[in-house]
Amino acid sequence: MNNLEMSDKAKPLLAEVIRHIHDHVDPITEEFYRLGEGRADRWSYAPGQLELLDGAKQKARDAGLWNFFLPNAETGEGLANLDYAYIAAELGKSPLASETLNCSAPDTGNMEVLERVGTPEQKERWLKPLLAGEIRSCFAMTEPDVASSDAKNIATRAVLDGDEWVINGEKFYISGAGDPRCKIMICMVKTSPEADAFRQQSQILVPMDTPGVEILGPMHVFGHDDAPHGHMHIRLKDVRVPAANMLWGEGRGFEISQVRLGPGRIHHCMRSIGQGEKALDLLMERALGREAFGKRIIDLGKNMETISRARIEIEAMRLMVLKAAKAMDTLGNKEARIWVSMIKAMVPEKVCQIIDQSMQVHGATGISQWSPLSHMYAGQRTLRYADGPDEVHHHVVARAEIQSFQSSNTRKAAE
Amino acid sequence: MNNLEMSDKAKPLLAEVIRHIHDHVDPITEEFYRLGEGRADRWSYAPGQLELLDGAKQKARDAGLWNFFLPNAETGEGLANLDYAYIAAELGKSPLASETLNCSAPDTGNMEVLERVGTPEQKERWLKPLLAGEIRSCFAMTEPDVASSDAKNIATRAVLDGDEWVINGEKFYISGAGDPRCKIMICMVKTSPEADAFRQQSQILVPMDTPGVEILGPMHVFGHDDAPHGHMHIRLKDVRVPAANMLWGEGRGFEISQVRLGPGRIHHCMRSIGQGEKALDLLMERALGREAFGKRIIDLGKNMETISRARIEIEAMRLMVLKAAKAMDTLGNKEARIWVSMIKAMVPEKVCQIIDQSMQVHGATGISQWSPLSHMYAGQRTLRYADGPDEVHHHVVARAEIQSFQSSNTRKAAE
Amino acid sequence: MNNLEMSDKAKPLLAEVIRHIHDHVDPITEEFYRLGEGRADRWSYAPGQLELLDGAKQKARDAGLWNFFLPNAETGEGLANLDYAYIAAELGKSPLASETLNCSAPDTGNMEVLERVGTPEQKERWLKPLLAGEIRSCFAMTEPDVASSDAKNIATRAVLDGDEWVINGEKFYISGAGDPRCKIMICMVKTSPEADAFRQQSQILVPMDTPGVEILGPMHVFGHDDAPHGHMHIRLKDVRVPAANMLWGEGRGFEISQVRLGPGRIHHCMRSIGQGEKALDLLMERALGREAFGKRIIDLGKNMETISRARIEIEAMRLMVLKAAKAMDTLGNKEARIWVSMIKAMVPEKVCQIIDQSMQVHGATGISQWSPLSHMYAGQRTLRYADGPDEVHHHVVARAEIQSFQSSNTRKAAE
Amino acid sequence: MNNLEMSDKAKPLLAEVIRHIHDHVDPITEEFYRLGEGRADRWSYAPGQLELLDGAKQKARDAGLWNFFLPNAETGEGLANLDYAYIAAELGKSPLASETLNCSAPDTGNMEVLERVGTPEQKERWLKPLLAGEIRSCFAMTEPDVASSDAKNIATRAVLDGDEWVINGEKFYISGAGDPRCKIMICMVKTSPEADAFRQQSQILVPMDTPGVEILGPMHVFGHDDAPHGHMHIRLKDVRVPAANMLWGEGRGFEISQVRLGPGRIHHCMRSIGQGEKALDLLMERALGREAFGKRIIDLGKNMETISRARIEIEAMRLMVLKAAKAMDTLGNKEARIWVSMIKAMVPEKVCQIIDQSMQVHGATGISQWSPLSHMYAGQRTLRYADGPDEVHHHVVARAEIQSFQSSNTRKAAE
Repeated sequence: MNNLEMSDKAKPLLAEVIRHIHDHVDPITEEFYRLGEGRADRWSYAPGQLELLDGAKQKARDAGLWNFFLPNAETGEGLANLDYAYIAAELGKSPLASETLNCSAPDTGNMEVLERVGTPEQKERWLKPLLAGEIRSCFAMTEPDVASSDAKNIATRAVLDGDEWVINGEKFYISGAGDPRCKIMICMVKTSPEADAFRQQSQILVPMDTPGVEILGPMHVFGHDDAPHGHMHIRLKDVRVPAANMLWGEGRGFEISQVRLGPGRIHHCMRSIGQGEKALDLLMERALGREAFGKRIIDLGKNMETISRARIEIEAMRLMVLKAAKAMDTLGNKEARIWVSMIKAMVPEKVCQIIDQSMQVHGATGISQWSPLSHMYAGQRTLRYADGPDEVHHHVVARAEIQSFQSSNTRKAAE
Repeated sequence: MNNLEMSDKAKPLLAEVIRHIHDHVDPITEEFYRLGEGRADRWSYAPGQLELLDGAKQKARDAGLWNFFLPNAETGEGLANLDYAYIAAELGKSPLASETLNCSAPDTGNMEVLERVGTPEQKERWLKPLLAGEIRSCFAMTEPDVASSDAKNIATRAVLDGDEWVINGEKFYISGAGDPRCKIMICMVKTSPEADAFRQQSQILVPMDTPGVEILGPMHVFGHDDAPHGHMHIRLKDVRVPAANMLWGEGRGFEISQVRLGPGRIHHCMRSIGQGEKALDLLMERALGREAFGKRIIDLGKNMETISRARIEIEAMRLMVLKAAKAMDTLGNKEARIWVSMIKAMVPEKVCQIIDQSMQVHGATGISQWSPLSHMYAGQRTLRYADGPDEVHHHVVARAEIQSFQSSNTRKAAE
Repeated sequence: MNNLEMSDKAKPLLAEVIRHIHDHVDPITEEFYRLGEGRADRWSYAPGQLELLDGAKQKARDAGLWNFFLPNAETGEGLANLDYAYIAAELGKSPLASETLNCSAPDTGNMEVLERVGTPEQKERWLKPLLAGEIRSCFAMTEPDVASSDAKNIATRAVLDGDEWVINGEKFYISGAGDPRCKIMICMVKTSPEADAFRQQSQILVPMDTPGVEILGPMHVFGHDDAPHGHMHIRLKDVRVPAANMLWGEGRGFEISQVRLGPGRIHHCMRSIGQGEKALDLLMERALGREAFGKRIIDLGKNMETISRARIEIEAMRLMVLKAAKAMDTLGNKEARIWVSMIKAMVPEKVCQIIDQSMQVHGATGISQWSPLSHMYAGQRTLRYADGPDEVHHHVVARAEIQSFQSSNTRKAAE
Repeated sequence: MNNLEMSDKAKPLLAEVIRHIHDHVDPITEEFYRLGEGRADRWSYAPGQLELLDGAKQKARDAGLWNFFLPNAETGEGLANLDYAYIAAELGKSPLASETLNCSAPDTGNMEVLERVGTPEQKERWLKPLLAGEIRSCFAMTEPDVASSDAKNIATRAVLDGDEWVINGEKFYISGAGDPRCKIMICMVKTSPEADAFRQQSQILVPMDTPGVEILGPMHVFGHDDAPHGHMHIRLKDVRVPAANMLWGEGRGFEISQVRLGPGRIHHCMRSIGQGEKALDLLMERALGREAFGKRIIDLGKNMETISRARIEIEAMRLMVLKAAKAMDTLGNKEARIWVSMIKAMVPEKVCQIIDQSMQVHGATGISQWSPLSHMYAGQRTLRYADGPDEVHHHVVARAEIQSFQSSNTRKAAE
């Protein structure tokens, strides 16, 4: 469990990914975003944007750097979670890199679910183009009117009417739903209100162009709408999808979440560490490059200690995420979930602090559009709610601690 | 020094301000911002906006709720800093209230400077319309290329050419410069590079329509541009103003800063406390109004302690700001500056934490445009740089502590 | 409520107290403790110790600096809580000063209780010699076997047998019970297990020499036994006291706690601030007086910011304690208890941090017997449990916040 | 570098150590300390104490559980740092376990130094009996009069007089020097004041019974003297030792520190994690076993989150210490020192917090002699100074970060 070394098989891939980012992603990043600026229609791509992106995607695919996220899949692709975690930390430093490898959220989770529980028809229709990077997808879980931290609160209803499910409800913060390439939504719905608390929910495939799927507008994160990807507010009004769109069977919504959430959270956390590294790098650059009161900023006050603490926290987080990935590889999703909750509760909070400290060293520039820091902060701050707020994950960890304490005491008593 | 009670004279004014906000500001706030949304030209007001605002301004003026910020002024208006501090906490809860009383930053500081050091001509030309609420103004201090935390770094040059100053340089985060009503800028410039470090700078009046004043664009704070007020990036290229536009005399830029900064920081801090109150209020509303895991959110985990700590911090900050205001009233700007640095280093940091905790209790809504919290956070986070970063203020406080320790030891030794 | 100025009447007293400490307490402190060192019988005073102390007490009494703690008393002595708070901060800097003014815990609380609710006979027998500083006393509340944070858990039983109460139970951390001059204990007991939860407890006077009162030994705080004062572990076995020893009446134990706890907590907190001042003073002395790596320690790393933050926190705590004292003076014990809980939850925690930072600057000396810091830390750390743990006080504050929020909403709704 | 798995060779040893502690150390611990209590001569062992200890030592030695700490030694004993780290975490849970395996500080460091740089005669005379557990030793570095955080400040002088070194100076916090079995001191002295800053110091062997070695008394840690082990204050007055007692050569004192400090700090940190585990275990036991306000304490307020955060921090620290041990095994002492500084700055601070939280949950018992927690706190708090204060280690880490940043930029620039 403590061998957190990357496999020999994967090591060259990491090197290739770093080279790919350096050669094919970094050079297009500035232009990609520049093209997208100041458009009247924020929910589309400007001419040239997708060409740039598709070029880099093709390069990655040609080099075999594709769909790394899917371990043990029938499709024969994918890396172990541990190996992928190393790569994800690199991807986290670039806003475009993940997509060029077809490894962006939320598609990775959606593909994993389809791969694990999809019917052959579902796979043919949706998994295939997703694996090929031809379409994108979204996942609709959170609702505006209830505390979604308790997933049992989900209120969007799906009722079977003949051989169709009829869905009514409202979802928000549906990331990626603004992208014109997004064609399919996996939607968490309540199908069986009278069943046990954990058997009332289902997950169902809803094509984005189904009548009744209405995008009400973008939700903002700290003032950013992240167009055209977007975090959309969606109303589902008498949306009808075939009964065959149900994933894995009615009442298995929670089970499916177990499948998707472990790896997804590891990816998030490892990319967060990439963000922490980037924030520290920017801090170093600024603190070494400017002077005030006759000294380099780095030599003022607590800045050296801030840097040390950031480095220590980053290394500690990295090892923890690698350990969670290893747990996922060796213990299976369910048993590994304590480790996943540990990193989910630990990493975004600490990375937010590191970014905040980097901002403080930058002065006013740090919160401006001239620096990526405020946008990075918004993204990490969001992760403290997304896929469960910190508080829920701390609760999972503490409950496991109680069980472990009690079973250890039982063991001692039995001696 | 510890009598922090509001004066009997001011108490009825506070009640009137609260009533004014309730009767005339709160009812127009939503419409004011709704009118401004989604405009192609973000740097102007929509039809109807200024009418709403001017209506509320007139109401305030008629009621004598006007220009409270200016104590001991020849104009006969203004409250003591202590009295005004109580009012500012109320103003801090509303984004429009300050302006309706003609008490918004940065105009308050600019008016105070003009009142204290302006020539009769300068007062007639600029102070009069400012006091009447007819025009607005900005203050240009921060520069993009140097660490402005050390004001000695200011690089914008003004050179006397005949009876005109010729100004060249670049400023950013010039708050309020985006407003079409902004007519005058007070600009910190370097006039005497060969003088003593604290006598090199001057402050000079630059009308916004002077040729060579070019607004390059808005700076963002966490993705917000705060249009049309704005935090503008401005280039000054061969800008020529009459020699008579110099304030107080060449080389007195630092002295003028002493005049303006004390009260301005107290106003900021007291409004920040209003923001902290509002964030706690929103937290309470959310935590009492939603349920998860079978309990009200307020009864989950550490939420009760979070609320208690927020209340304790708010009350402690309030007393500290009142004490700083009292120090300003009784000790004068210079001697009171330790107290001002204490609150400037204390308040925005803690208010940021309270807003952040309120956001966490709100879940995704907390960072969205459906809640004012993320915008409030951006504003408070900015204050941790504005008018000097926290670190500089901590340094001022610690240096004063050393002096006090040493003089006390000298006194003991002399006994 | 925000006039936190000392009264004109009390100001000269503060000056006299400072002079008294300087002239009569500081000069005997070192010798007092030196005499007590290394004694075989730790639970007595060495020859000469009490003579020193009594000398300083006589000086204080002669100067009228005596029993300040008891406001509005029939005895005609005592200061308002606000005035006393200023004096307590000075007392907090010296380990002996409080006792020389007959203002030490727990006697102050015991005297206040006797003054407020004692019968004439109880006052004659116990209050008189306490007010005269002839005997000392203790207060027995905490029990080893239950969570005393919930006072309803108190298990020590008192049963009426004829005209005597028969008491059985176990108490610990009974501060002052080790002192040979301690003659009387106020003991919290359960008298009416069948009554309402808050009417089951009573407080009763137990002379220390009553048969069955057995001191089992001293409890330590971080390795210190604080002999001969001590924090004793006491067993009460069939202890019989006259029915007339009951205070105020059966079932009023909780009511009596309300009387004693408010002022006592204010005294504790204000002395804590004195401790914080002393810790900061020691930090300054060390940081200015030593060098490492070619700089004064004060100029290394974050030390300047540490000093600034300590000063800011101390001033904020001071104002909060003054406000709580004022609330106690003007609102009465019951209504002021929210303010008391605020300072009780705020002050010892922050003072612990300041002492800890001072220790860190001292290096190894800071935790040694060469510095008072580790003993000061132990004392302040204990206060985070004594008279209710921080958590209970935070709960009180948060509950009050809920009530205030709800009544304000009710008010708004009614408009 | 990230394979942090214990070696297959060492795994059975860990199991045997756990069994040894369970079978032979835990059963004698209470009696060992009980025998030592309340003795007039605190600086000796009571009859029976050493017999108990020696019995357990013999058991360990017979089982081959002996001198694990010395990797790659000529003596053929010792484990890799990584393997030993796993064992040290177990040792950290028991106050006696380390010594029964002959693995206690400061002997481990002293033996390592003798093994690495001792002459054959020095080894025969001192290393042999130390390895056999027949004598104990101490290390004299810290001095009362200078900031020892900067080792260049060391003022104890050694002057060569013929074939003897004559030593004069004062040392304090010499741990283990109180033990009657302590026979030899390694003493850091200044031999060459005129040499380069890092070549002025030497380390020299001083038998404890050398005339002029005077133990002035014990230094306390938070009121504990830790007798008879002790942290002694020692004066060296004209102490004469043969020139052959010099270790490795004059002026190599700093080099020797590099040898000893890396492994020693790893041992400390790993035992600290054992302490953190024990504190969390005690917290769980208390919080699950008591009730207040109608709930188990664990279900009150923030306690569940406290537990989760403690678990997360412990796991993160464990991985970091294992990584530092691995770095020590694979990169050598010098290159690994950044990792060692990282854990030295990280671990004791966080473990102090965990112990403090456990104390808070325990109420008054937590700071009493009925719980090991306050003694554990004192020990961990001391580690924040010992072997360099946190601040110095943070400085080392930050300086390495600067170097790494600059060389990476140079590399990028060269591309």
